[in-house]
Amino acid sequence: MKEFKAGPLLDKIDIPEDLRNLSVEDLPQVSDEVRQYIIDVISEIGNSHFGASLGVVELTVALHYVFNTPYDQLVWDVGHQAYGHKILTGRRKQFHTNRMKGGISGFPKRSESEYDTFGVGHSSTSISGALGMAVANNYKGEKERQHIAVIGDGAMTAGLAFEGMNHAGFEKDANLLVVLNDNCMSIDPNVGALKDYLTDITTSHTYNKVKDEVWKLLGKMSKFGPDAQTVASKVSTALKGSLLKQSNLFEALNFRYFGPVDGHDVIGLAKILEDLKDIPGPKLLHILTKKGKGYKYSEEGNPTQWHAPGVFNKHTGEIVKVVPKSPQAPKYQDVFGHTIVELAEENDKIMGITPAMPTGSSLNIMMKAMPDRAFDVGIAEQHAVTFSAGLATQGMVPFCNIYSSFMQRAYDQVVHDVALQNLNVVFCLDRAGFAGADGATHHGALDIAYMRSIPNMIVASPMNEAELRNMMYTAQQENMGPFSIRYPRGKGVMPEWKTKMKAIKVGTGRKITSGEDIAILSIGHHGNYVQKAVEMLKGEASVAHYDMRFVKPLDETLLHEVFSKFDKVITVEDGTIMGGMGSAILEFMADNKYKADLTRLGIPDAYVHHGTQDELYADCGFDAIGIANTVRKELNLPQQIAEEQKNVG
Amino acid sequence: MKEFKAGPLLDKIDIPEDLRNLSVEDLPQVSDEVRQYIIDVISEIGNSHFGASLGVVELTVALHYVFNTPYDQLVWDVGHQAYGHKILTGRRKQFHTNRMKGGISGFPKRSESEYDTFGVGHSSTSISGALGMAVANNYKGEKERQHIAVIGDGAMTAGLAFEGMNHAGFEKDANLLVVLNDNCMSIDPNVGALKDYLTDITTSHTYNKVKDEVWKLLGKMSKFGPDAQTVASKVSTALKGSLLKQSNLFEALNFRYFGPVDGHDVIGLAKILEDLKDIPGPKLLHILTKKGKGYKYSEEGNPTQWHAPGVFNKHTGEIVKVVPKSPQAPKYQDVFGHTIVELAEENDKIMGITPAMPTGSSLNIMMKAMPDRAFDVGIAEQHAVTFSAGLATQGMVPFCNIYSSFMQRAYDQVVHDVALQNLNVVFCLDRAGFAGADGATHHGALDIAYMRSIPNMIVASPMNEAELRNMMYTAQQENMGPFSIRYPRGKGVMPEWKTKMKAIKVGTGRKITSGEDIAILSIGHHGNYVQKAVEMLKGEASVAHYDMRFVKPLDETLLHEVFSKFDKVITVEDGTIMGGMGSAILEFMADNKYKADLTRLGIPDAYVHHGTQDELYADCGFDAIGIANTVRKELNLPQQIAEEQKNVG
Repeated sequence: MKEFKAGPLLDKIDIPEDLRNLSVEDLPQVSDEVRQYIIDVISEIGNSHFGASLGVVELTVALHYVFNTPYDQLVWDVGHQAYGHKILTGRRKQFHTNRMKGGISGFPKRSESEYDTFGVGHSSTSISGALGMAVANNYKGEKERQHIAVIGDGAMTAGLAFEGMNHAGFEKDANLLVVLNDNCMSIDPNVGALKDYLTDITTSHTYNKVKDEVWKLLGKMSKFGPDAQTVASKVSTALKGSLLKQSNLFEALNFRYFGPVDGHDVIGLAKILEDLKDIPGPKLLHILTKKGKGYKYSEEGNPTQWHAPGVFNKHTGEIVKVVPKSPQAPKYQDVFGHTIVELAEENDKIMGITPAMPTGSSLNIMMKAMPDRAFDVGIAEQHAVTFSAGLATQGMVPFCNIYSSFMQRAYDQVVHDVALQNLNVVFCLDRAGFAGADGATHHGALDIAYMRSIPNMIVASPMNEAELRNMMYTAQQENMGPFSIRYPRGKGVMPEWKTKMKAIKVGTGRKITSGEDIAILSIGHHGNYVQKAVEMLKGEASVAHYDMRFVKPLDETLLHEVFSKFDKVITVEDGTIMGGMGSAILEFMADNKYKADLTRLGIPDAYVHHGTQDELYADCGFDAIGIANTVRKELNLPQQIAEEQKNVG
Repeated sequence: MKEFKAGPLLDKIDIPEDLRNLSVEDLPQVSDEVRQYIIDVISEIGNSHFGASLGVVELTVALHYVFNTPYDQLVWDVGHQAYGHKILTGRRKQFHTNRMKGGISGFPKRSESEYDTFGVGHSSTSISGALGMAVANNYKGEKERQHIAVIGDGAMTAGLAFEGMNHAGFEKDANLLVVLNDNCMSIDPNVGALKDYLTDITTSHTYNKVKDEVWKLLGKMSKFGPDAQTVASKVSTALKGSLLKQSNLFEALNFRYFGPVDGHDVIGLAKILEDLKDIPGPKLLHILTKKGKGYKYSEEGNPTQWHAPGVFNKHTGEIVKVVPKSPQAPKYQDVFGHTIVELAEENDKIMGITPAMPTGSSLNIMMKAMPDRAFDVGIAEQHAVTFSAGLATQGMVPFCNIYSSFMQRAYDQVVHDVALQNLNVVFCLDRAGFAGADGATHHGALDIAYMRSIPNMIVASPMNEAELRNMMYTAQQENMGPFSIRYPRGKGVMPEWKTKMKAIKVGTGRKITSGEDIAILSIGHHGNYVQKAVEMLKGEASVAHYDMRFVKPLDETLLHEVFSKFDKVITVEDGTIMGGMGSAILEFMADNKYKADLTRLGIPDAYVHHGTQDELYADCGFDAIGIANTVRKELNLPQQIAEEQKNVG
């Protein structure tokens, strides 16, 4: 990896203290250099987010210039916009390792830097986290300490953000600044009433300007001692009363609202942030930014595409696409996206729901084809599920597509609103298993364990594209009840994936390979790794392989066959082994008094960091080699690590 | 059970159609009779909610009078206020079986009545559910069909409600009416910025009145055909633009806001609801009510006490308290409440957090003793957890107390904000296991399964009060990381519970009884039922009993001892057996190749309905008799059901 050169000012900034030694007039140049550094590195390494960090370069520079980080606590919501922050806080020289195994994380992470005050990844946690910090430090008597949450307009739609605002507005002594970074975007264009509202207030400047001045002046009075502060507070209360009929949404929640201001004017930002430091209590600064700002091609192009473009030619804006030599298997996401449209054309009860991931999930295909039947509900997993339950009560068959790790946020809604009522909602759990470069926050490790404990829930996972299509076909049949289908991020195995769909009997697995010495039971796409392992072992061991297809209900006929025949069994799943499919099979064994040796392979009971999926499978011992070696160990055969690693790559 | 007599009008109302045949002038009397019926029945049967249903009697009557239920879809948020609804919708004569085993549910439930459009129990689901219904029926072309969500101001603080509002404001064709029932209460007094705001808008009538008229007139224009509707819509848009600077929080989210109006004026309510029928799109009616309205003692008394008072003398308002003959064991809740204060007096890092359950959890003891260190954050479980994470980053030790079934709502925050960052947050999971009369929505069945899958999480449960105190003492020690302690609703076993606290080594269990024939491993309070079973079995079998104390980490030393000695083992837990402690022990056995017969007792893989805790334990075969019989079965001894039932009850 070549060394990346920073501009002359940035080159001298190792930590924010260095930045703060510069004059405010230098900040535009610092911003340009940070931006250029991001472009230089990301265009070359790819595998990263992009547009979000470009959009907050000026904000990042202004925040670290004005606030005394890391003593002042800066929390980035989601965190994929924090590249500038990482570059300015001691990690410029590691930045080219972004999201690679062993490299820095793509998100702020407490274990990585004292400047990363709160680990993030999932959205909308920043207000609650920063409020906790502010309340704690207020209690400790550190009243001058500042706490800043930077949150996007998309993340602001999530319930957690609102809950945080509602509490913060009540903690009048908490020194909390929320910076609302309004770029009208989630990963896809933001949706919902709040977005419309933010557009509206942006167009009514005069009123806000007057108010900003009043609040600022009142805030500054606290400098003149406690009596002055009391007077200011009384004036403030009186104004609040009379201004109330003119208050905006944030003021309704007891926040002082400032803005909107230009988020790309770094000197202006530095000034207003300096002013806000003196104003006690909860306050919100609304800034307007453009995702992808400052790089011609991302500014002019499709912001969703430039969210995470991969490797690109920084001079031409051309995104490098590797053209494969042979026909490739499609992504599971695309199979989902096309298949739901196919099914919905036949079954007019089908609807599609995504919480802010239309492109990522490929539900955008249905949103385009059938706009009245496909819904992006914003970053709102809880609502997505309960809304689906409401649809189902009226006879619809909603397909609610949520990433496995984000579904954790709607667990209660799955339990209480869907499964308890036995409603026909189909959950498509995307990015189940290791997510890869996004790391620990995004791995879908827990869903098999948390879904199979829920009564009435069918838990299925396809080994390939045809199986995904068949499961989707099966799930939309009448009176199926709650039905979940998990599949991983990325490609399947069938270039010719447009198979004719047919129903699968719920709770039936299938035999992939016959064998005599040992049986492997797998669930989902990872069965393909098992197949490779079985191939590798040819000549060494006769291995039977079963694709379970359903974790719940289990195929008891198949399991009786397996445990009657084999006294050594291995389970393989791309999910936690604490309560996962392996454990379900142990429960079956216990209930039926089978005594085979059972070895569970899957994600261990630990937070696994970032890396490619294959790197992580290998690390956790359930890539093909790991599976093969487990078979050898169980059968007391010699291990053959080195040679196969050579063969595999 | 005596028969309860209804007043002359109510006596003729079996279904809402009967109500709708009356004249509007009769509605006050109907309301009085419904109220009296609730007082008559609940004062006698006890075991029920009370104040909430009294507060919405007029609303209930007006809704069923104006709307064409069950064709029009009425969704009650939470649902403990829906007694009047049940009485008016065919269940008056079953109402005295409320919350009893085999009787009607204390909450709306789809399987119970076609008038119960959406099963509820947990708060804040109504807007999302009703929006789903409205979108579905709009899609089906049933454009005149009405969808009404009735939600309290407390429930409105939860993120899910906000997510629903944000989406609804975007679905301009959805025929949705949200009735905001503002009584300034959750179970305890409501808190948060939103509550202040609602108080504020209630005091600024003139502005709202003018606006109400305009919206109503515009709404009515839709009657005059599509052209008139287009004009009305344009006028509406223009007004919205110019009124925007005066808009309120709900209008900011694209809802038309009406109110506030008196929620106890049933004729006024019927009129405004009739008007609102003609107004398309999302709209919110803000009504003011008093919890406990219309019954002298609940109106004048403490609303938290009258939330669910038990049996009382309806004439004197005296709440019947059974005075026990001997000293009683305290509730686990009170042990928690007193112990956290004791600990916090010694450790100034401890803070207490509850999402709207100060009385239920007994955190109110700390809130009174240490108001700056104990927080009621409103109905906001997600925020409660992430706020606790924020506190912990600054060195605090937050005790976050959440009911087990409500913690389902903060699962992602536990995984992503606390455990991943390995922060010292102590989770006290109250009402773990069967909740009793609240039924399926409130049973804490899943927490062992969903908590033990989370890396870094300690999962503990005390068998008695002293153990609870010791676990709390242990959890607040430095660098403990995420620590969860589950305990059931209700009483422990130690009248002398104020034991001296001491640390427990994490991951150690204890032997309660030695034995030779079989071993029982229990977790938590339910170990006391095991002890009873062991007593019962004396002379029949020699049973060893171990209290595991920790599901994670498991006491492997103890387990090696057990599995080296016994070939028959039973696990007992007041939690699901799909992935619970029994499964954890099966995992240990598999990893160590132990081959004992293991039988798991606990909550089955089904939604269990309401009843007393002991009734439910018996039904599910893990009361003392059930445990004893399982031992007999495993040891091939004769069952002795009848005789023991005689002895026990």
